[in-house]
Amino acid sequence: MAELRKDLITGEWVNIVVERAKRPSEFHHRKESRAVRGEHSQCPFCPGNEVQTGASLLEYPGAADGEPWSVRVVPNKFPAFHGAGDAERVQHGINLAAPAVGAHEVVIETPEHGKSLARLELPQVERVLAAYRERYLALREDPRLEYTLVFRNHGKVAGASIEHAHSQIIGTPIIPQLAHTRIRGIERYQQEHGRCVYCDIIEQEQEDARRIVAQNASFIAFAPFASRHPFEIWILPMERKAHFVDISPGELRDLAAILKETLLRLELCLGDPPYNFMLLTTDFSEVFHWHIEIVPRLSIAAGFELGTGIYLNVVAPEQAAQFLRDVTITPTKGT
Amino acid sequence: MAELRKDLITGEWVNIVVERAKRPSEFHHRKESRAVRGEHSQCPFCPGNEVQTGASLLEYPGAADGEPWSVRVVPNKFPAFHGAGDAERVQHGINLAAPAVGAHEVVIETPEHGKSLARLELPQVERVLAAYRERYLALREDPRLEYTLVFRNHGKVAGASIEHAHSQIIGTPIIPQLAHTRIRGIERYQQEHGRCVYCDIIEQEQEDARRIVAQNASFIAFAPFASRHPFEIWILPMERKAHFVDISPGELRDLAAILKETLLRLELCLGDPPYNFMLLTTDFSEVFHWHIEIVPRLSIAAGFELGTGIYLNVVAPEQAAQFLRDVTITPTKGT
Repeated sequence: MAELRKDLITGEWVNIVVERAKRPSEFHHRKESRAVRGEHSQCPFCPGNEVQTGASLLEYPGAADGEPWSVRVVPNKFPAFHGAGDAERVQHGINLAAPAVGAHEVVIETPEHGKSLARLELPQVERVLAAYRERYLALREDPRLEYTLVFRNHGKVAGASIEHAHSQIIGTPIIPQLAHTRIRGIERYQQEHGRCVYCDIIEQEQEDARRIVAQNASFIAFAPFASRHPFEIWILPMERKAHFVDISPGELRDLAAILKETLLRLELCLGDPPYNFMLLTTDFSEVFHWHIEIVPRLSIAAGFELGTGIYLNVVAPEQAAQFLRDVTITPTKGT
Repeated sequence: MAELRKDLITGEWVNIVVERAKRPSEFHHRKESRAVRGEHSQCPFCPGNEVQTGASLLEYPGAADGEPWSVRVVPNKFPAFHGAGDAERVQHGINLAAPAVGAHEVVIETPEHGKSLARLELPQVERVLAAYRERYLALREDPRLEYTLVFRNHGKVAGASIEHAHSQIIGTPIIPQLAHTRIRGIERYQQEHGRCVYCDIIEQEQEDARRIVAQNASFIAFAPFASRHPFEIWILPMERKAHFVDISPGELRDLAAILKETLLRLELCLGDPPYNFMLLTTDFSEVFHWHIEIVPRLSIAAGFELGTGIYLNVVAPEQAAQFLRDVTITPTKGT
């Protein structure tokens, strides 16, 4: 029997429809043709081709001999949000529009072409996260912006158009409705229970244990009870902070470790699946509990999902977490 | 410059990012391998194989010589919602679950294998819509259900697993948050302006004219101002009715005509693209304005969309509508 499960934050239901137990191999992704600007010599993110991306907004020095840099942040060449000025509203009859001013940046995560974030050495993953934080702090000062999202598209199916490992940062002049919805959900729970809903979720997950994927001193990675997508994983800091930028140096190291481990487990378990991750934080509310949501792209949202917002998920999160825990990770240099 | 546009109903913004004018041919879809149960003799929806789907919930007599039936509605063999009883809530610690009781039906739209809904003769499209209405009326009496959605997945990318033309009906024991969001948006607009937002949108679209795709006495098809997806189209009845089942026989004929025309324009303009459509109606509110939303699946919702709910759309709706209007439709038998 399929089971409806309620997301405690958005209030939306998910339908866990497990017709039969699936093996992870059923989700193994056919290796995508990596044709899209996949050639080393022409890759705009490779060392030697820096002229293609223009001046860096941030650049960390090379970590290995002969490396010109270790992480670079550059403006997106095809920005979805850009330009100066106010996002002044314009009325077209009953309709409302505004120029999409804002920021759109690319974080080039490594000089090494063809290496996935999950396969980078731990200190390098830490540098990537430090770059997120540093750019986030800079964009906080930008008077055009109301909201900033760090996200990552891995694989063509997840929307990546360049193979070389990178993530993106978009700053928008408006606050998304979805961000308001999350805050309202947190406030509703706070009023009813006097506690942070994410903190209660962490406690519940630790007590239940079945959905946990990884843990360390500062973070927990788990498949949420009302997972909308097969193998969806959330990484939450144990200690609630509203803003990602307030992360401590020790927490940053722990975040690098659990993010790398989780992505590596996904890669090994599902055969390098396409995925998105989103680093959710906010400037406009003090009640948030910043965290990362990882969404492997293994299924299609069809007419039912588009029409209702209710997702059909064919893998129970308890099952997904177990498969991910069962993966054997061979320690490599830097891990 | 990219332009943000606000959806008047959900309040969410969309970013129309037109880097450069695109020709429809850039969206032409590679013909999908139609391997999945595409063989005539094994197709469970073909005449002769009725035993595979079991007893009909509704069956219309054949319209042509030797046709055993024209439309059949059968239970979905792999239902996402099914079973009897109450969807009684079960508390698991802080989490809430409920059995996914409900209905999941398949509308087999024609006995002819390989014919798309857009290519059916007009009276046959009308019969399909009449079947939607009849099943909707039946499910309205089902005490398990709080919400019912008719939807269609066309093409593998849009979630279809069987080629033979069909749509689906799902009845759920809960009201989706998205349905509540739409009603709240309508009520907010009503309070501010004293009018139905969808009625005002129709008036605005007729005045502006640039986004109209097709029109007849009872319906208008247009690319909405804040289209989230390239070539998204809404079909609205001119006269507001909350409930689809209250459609008149004359309106049903007009709906068949405009739906067929719109789908045919999409097919000819974009090379038979994968798409979903959703027939949005509700039982729980009298303020709704029922309508159909068509979403061609030409782009990928990536990390930014998943994280913010704000869509990046690379085709301006004004441009999409013009391309669709410019298609020459050769009248065929029955159209």
